Amino acid sequence: MSQPFDIAVIGATGTVGETLVQILEERDFPVGTLHLLASIESAGQSVPFRGKNVRVREVDEFDFSKVRLVFFAAGEQVTLAYAPRAHAAGCALIDLSGALPAEQAPRVVPEANAELLKSLSAPYQLSSPSASVTALAVVLAPLHGLLTLQRLSVTACLAVSSQGREGVVELARQTAELLNVRPLEPRFFDRQIAFNLLGQVGPADDAGHTLLEKRLADELKQILADPALKVAATCVQAPVFFGDSLSLSLQSATKVDLKAVCAALDSAPGIERVEPGDYPTAVGDAVGQDVVYVGRVRNGLDDPTELNLWIASDNVRKGAALNAVQIGELLIKHYL
Amino acid sequence: MSQPFDIAVIGATGTVGETLVQILEERDFPVGTLHLLASIESAGQSVPFRGKNVRVREVDEFDFSKVRLVFFAAGEQVTLAYAPRAHAAGCALIDLSGALPAEQAPRVVPEANAELLKSLSAPYQLSSPSASVTALAVVLAPLHGLLTLQRLSVTACLAVSSQGREGVVELARQTAELLNVRPLEPRFFDRQIAFNLLGQVGPADDAGHTLLEKRLADELKQILADPALKVAATCVQAPVFFGDSLSLSLQSATKVDLKAVCAALDSAPGIERVEPGDYPTAVGDAVGQDVVYVGRVRNGLDDPTELNLWIASDNVRKGAALNAVQIGELLIKHYL
Repeated sequence: MSQPFDIAVIGATGTVGETLVQILEERDFPVGTLHLLASIESAGQSVPFRGKNVRVREVDEFDFSKVRLVFFAAGEQVTLAYAPRAHAAGCALIDLSGALPAEQAPRVVPEANAELLKSLSAPYQLSSPSASVTALAVVLAPLHGLLTLQRLSVTACLAVSSQGREGVVELARQTAELLNVRPLEPRFFDRQIAFNLLGQVGPADDAGHTLLEKRLADELKQILADPALKVAATCVQAPVFFGDSLSLSLQSATKVDLKAVCAALDSAPGIERVEPGDYPTAVGDAVGQDVVYVGRVRNGLDDPTELNLWIASDNVRKGAALNAVQIGELLIKHYL
Repeated sequence: MSQPFDIAVIGATGTVGETLVQILEERDFPVGTLHLLASIESAGQSVPFRGKNVRVREVDEFDFSKVRLVFFAAGEQVTLAYAPRAHAAGCALIDLSGALPAEQAPRVVPEANAELLKSLSAPYQLSSPSASVTALAVVLAPLHGLLTLQRLSVTACLAVSSQGREGVVELARQTAELLNVRPLEPRFFDRQIAFNLLGQVGPADDAGHTLLEKRLADELKQILADPALKVAATCVQAPVFFGDSLSLSLQSATKVDLKAVCAALDSAPGIERVEPGDYPTAVGDAVGQDVVYVGRVRNGLDDPTELNLWIASDNVRKGAALNAVQIGELLIKHYL
């Protein structure tokens, strides 16, 4: 094991933060002292780490010069409030909230753009992208050189856990109400999510796009270093607790060789390709796994220059917590 | 009311057949004698029509020369077995199973290709297409002349009722088992459908496409009379009881004028367009309604020649039963 690093995790009581702490332990991340931080409401709780309960302290009172690496796994507001302090104290920081612009904290998916770090300097500020982008980047990285990608259309069916614990609780509550034939009262989501699909996540701008959709396109283009790629994204809230499902249609300039695509996917890190005939699902395959599942590898029905894929990925794990820890591993191995 | 027609409905005890009989009554279809038919297993049951219970008789013993119009709302095997007898008896027939090839029984969505009937002759053999095609055809008909459509990519999230009663029962049973923390035993679907999405419906061919996806493409191109349209389709089984949700991406040869698109949608029959900012859902809007809901009308994020739409439609009603009755109305008004 390399030298231990004192680190901090902000938002350690949330869905992603809790998983992140678990993954630090699972992967034997060289943690010296682990500082768990949260807003004043969650401070005082405890989170298990290496057989002990680590008490969560209030972020506002934390001295960031005590650590060398900070994970921001709380909301955007928390990142905006405390990232400048962490940065000024000389900490490397990895943000999971998407709050920091790419110019300041570029998006990194180690399987796709680990090389990007070479062009940066300390103190490092990096972001783990939104969950569906992490999955897309893992899958597209090995295909990007193989295909002459021109256009990408994705329908991303997102788990309610992408909205944190409240999303999970709301789907469970609504489902139980409906099964017990009680009147439905949507609270967290503005309408019925149980046994329904919500075709828009968050408000849309004047052009009709949501922040999540614009972020998906921007982050993906940055990670693939392909600003000319044309992206159409529809983010949908699905009545699924954990695991994102992505229906992807890619347009190449030339005929897509499916054998070469399968070979590239099979030899790339972080991907489990499911053989034709079978197909992966979020719940049955992806949840709890580190890899991104890809199946239904096929051309368009009428077009050999088109490639269609079905992707299932654990939104909390590879989509967020694991990817952030992998960025941390990259940092401590080569850069800190 | 026009002269009454003696008609037969085969499969009257199924999800679609039952709704079809309801709609015949609702729309005051000029029914003389209504013959309800089913396989030997369902014969003997009763279905309400105009305040009376109509007994379901065995199809095998039916004399088709007693009626002028037959709806085939049972499975493909039943259509294949009895359509020749109905046709030989001189009946007009409307098939909902998809079993008959388009050359024999062309697909009709009255809002899109009612004119097709002019080129046919009695005894008429027509098909109502699969539910997602009905919704797509209603929406694309007014856009087809406006845009120079080149390519269409659709992710169709289908309700379990598209598999009939067994699909509905299975989703309810699996959901109850999971909520009660009992072990899950998939029966009708081959894996967990509750709180999950199944990215493939039915077996795939060697090229990776399912019958449903190929049918979607073929039927849509036939209805739009556009054999050159390139279609990519992914049909997904969603944990939704009733109502299909379609995420649609269209590629035009030229810039898409969103105002013209909205105007065309607004003036077309059978469509309810939802204003930007809001969006339709299967459960909240479409189920129980005759119209197809369209929302999220927008360009691609990076491409003004692209049009993205979100469609919600009642798969049992407009997707099947209502569309078949509308075909019947066309027939009796102009052709029988």
